[in-house]
Amino acid sequence: MRKILVIGIGAGDPEQLTLEAVRAIAEVDVFFVLDKGAAKRDLLGLRQEILRRHPTKPGHRVVELRDPDRDRTAPAYVDAVDEWRRRRAELLRVLLRDEVPEDGRGAFLVWGDPALYDSTLGVIEEMLADGTVEFDYAVIPGVSSVATLAARHRIGLNRVGRPFQVTTGRLLAEGWPSGVDDLVVMLDAHCTFGQVTEPDVEIYWGAYLGTADEILVAGPLAEVAAKIVEVRRAARERKGWIMDTYLLRRRAPRME
Amino acid sequence: MRKILVIGIGAGDPEQLTLEAVRAIAEVDVFFVLDKGAAKRDLLGLRQEILRRHPTKPGHRVVELRDPDRDRTAPAYVDAVDEWRRRRAELLRVLLRDEVPEDGRGAFLVWGDPALYDSTLGVIEEMLADGTVEFDYAVIPGVSSVATLAARHRIGLNRVGRPFQVTTGRLLAEGWPSGVDDLVVMLDAHCTFGQVTEPDVEIYWGAYLGTADEILVAGPLAEVAAKIVEVRRAARERKGWIMDTYLLRRRAPRME
Ligand SMILES: C[S@@+](CC[C@H](N)C(=O)[O-])C[C@H]1O[C@@H](n2cnc3c(N)ncnc32)[C@H](O)[C@@H]1O
Ligand SMILES: C[S@@+](CC[C@H](N)C(=O)[O-])C[C@H]1O[C@@H](n2cnc3c(N)ncnc32)[C@H](O)[C@@H]1O
Repeated sequence: MRKILVIGIGAGDPEQLTLEAVRAIAEVDVFFVLDKGAAKRDLLGLRQEILRRHPTKPGHRVVELRDPDRDRTAPAYVDAVDEWRRRRAELLRVLLRDEVPEDGRGAFLVWGDPALYDSTLGVIEEMLADGTVEFDYAVIPGVSSVATLAARHRIGLNRVGRPFQVTTGRLLAEGWPSGVDDLVVMLDAHCTFGQVTEPDVEIYWGAYLGTADEILVAGPLAEVAAKIVEVRRAARERKGWIMDTYLLRRRAPRME
Repeated sequence: MRKILVIGIGAGDPEQLTLEAVRAIAEVDVFFVLDKGAAKRDLLGLRQEILRRHPTKPGHRVVELRDPDRDRTAPAYVDAVDEWRRRRAELLRVLLRDEVPEDGRGAFLVWGDPALYDSTLGVIEEMLADGTVEFDYAVIPGVSSVATLAARHRIGLNRVGRPFQVTTGRLLAEGWPSGVDDLVVMLDAHCTFGQVTEPDVEIYWGAYLGTADEILVAGPLAEVAAKIVEVRRAARERKGWIMDTYLLRRRAPRME
């Protein structure tokens, strides 16, 4: 049976690849590439770099997917994502059938860890749901951008005995969630930290983590928010795209 | 100046080591080992396995720390942890000064990712706070048990556009936290999932993830909870210790 591997490759540094991932890559017949948008070329660059550095199967191919357009302005955001996944799944089924030998391996090299705000697993389930192409699949975990953010700032994500939450810029815009003092924010295109009015919040911000362009800023939110907005704007202008993540840490009463 | 590396080594599978970690390990003079309790021997085993498999510096040493006793029954849990960290820090300062050359490298091989419910970074900050031994330090992120849990179950930690929370068994015992439908639970010695009364919850449970003893159970919580309790009890009896993690996923109204 065909097998698909979903391989986490780390968040930007080719050295974040695990030995398990290196070994898996060596047996892949066809790599599927799904990236889209402005960051596409650089994200693709990391994958090419990874394939250059490590043993690959002779004759393996890299197939880039014409990404179906995604309606980012649709009011029903989740529905738009669903529809876009369905179309991606269809394209992929055709590719899998036509490009991967019947006992061969296809793979997705997924940014960071495949379990974090990534659509690949959803696409694969769509591919399976249809039932027209049979295949097995497995996931190889990777180092996420969140782990990299914490490592660069040399902090834990949680405080002792406390929970933390991972959320999106869109959700943070609705207010600080209840019950947590430590908040990791991803997918924030709008510097939503600037809307946070809680007192005593520290921010640990990072962009292009793990890459040569990495930028880190940390400090009391009220003091560094404006600086981050400006640094982010300038960096984005310079490179044409940005990926950033941050942890917001609110002063919390110590737990008894 | 002396340098300390805090190296994430993955959650149980030596193949989860990153290339960055492999490279860092090759330059370490002294490895400090902090594990404690019943799991100690097996956790130590993974580290020894890693050092066996990869190039190390000639003459490097592995120093096991006599772990100061920790008062697990103290009512003020956080204070007890703090006191225990202070004593560990003191022991380590002495070891660092006496065992690591002045321009040398010490390292901690940390289970999973150092940012997740791990005390090493806290201990290092204690070591620094005292000011009697100067050193620099850096963190190398790793694949966490949480990423491994998700990979083995082939699921995402979040659902599209939704947040998720990472918490402890102790906190879950106080009730399902508000504002999230996806909950990762760590450090749960008491099968606290059994106390969850919410309807329509799925559980994705994993023990000894990444090791040869790995066990996975998933399904509707109401249907599989008793089975997990039994599987866990038997496994724990067999091996003498257990490490398990799980995701609780509550049916949520779709977001608009
Ligand atoms: C679609 S999600 C994918 C996350 C990925 N699966 C992971 O584990 O990091 C993309 C978001 O991840 C974060 N991100 C990914 N890579 C990053 C990097 N190198 N530096 C900073 N943030 C990053 C940003 O918040 C970005 O909006
Ligand atoms: C002190 S925390 C350390 C977590 C670690 N830093 C990580 O990133 O996975 C220990 C908890 O992590 C989880 N854990 C660690 N390794 C695990 C494994 N191999 N399988 C299942 N759970 C694990 C368990 O919930 C355990 O109680």
